[in-house]
Amino acid sequence: MLKPEILDPQGQAVQRALPRLGFEGISDVRQGKRFELEVDGPVDEAALARIHDLAESFLANTVIEDFTVRVENVAEAAK
Amino acid sequence: MLKPEILDPQGQAVQRALPRLGFEGISDVRQGKRFELEVDGPVDEAALARIHDLAESFLANTVIEDFTVRVENVAEAAK
Repeated sequence: MLKPEILDPQGQAVQRALPRLGFEGISDVRQGKRFELEVDGPVDEAALARIHDLAESFLANTVIEDFTVRVENVAEAAK
Repeated sequence: MLKPEILDPQGQAVQRALPRLGFEGISDVRQGKRFELEVDGPVDEAALARIHDLAESFLANTVIEDFTVRVENVAEAAK
């Protein structure tokens, strides 16, 4: 996601359009990217650290973007 | 996220680039969008249903995309 201090014109456009479309009560919208990575082997701490590096160095532009790494399928991850 | 049956050239490009960049063991990458909505008032079931409608009718292209709605800040949501 874009850092809070970075303007997000796409999100703002969506937010302004919502009342016209009948959706009230949304005070802010921010748009960002999402990557789903499928990992070979166990998603252990080492793998997560590697993916964190990957996200930091390659997927996100850390000058303007924040990112979080999340394990989606815990059952798969625990294999 | 794009549905599994829809090709994702952006994600594929990322996936193919990873070994060159020293990241092995990622078997698949898919790229999608993410929206963060700030909701006025309580995030109760009615609000979530409304947001689900909004996502379905406006944020996602449900012909080619799946979406999930998730409450991020449970403490805030419980207010």
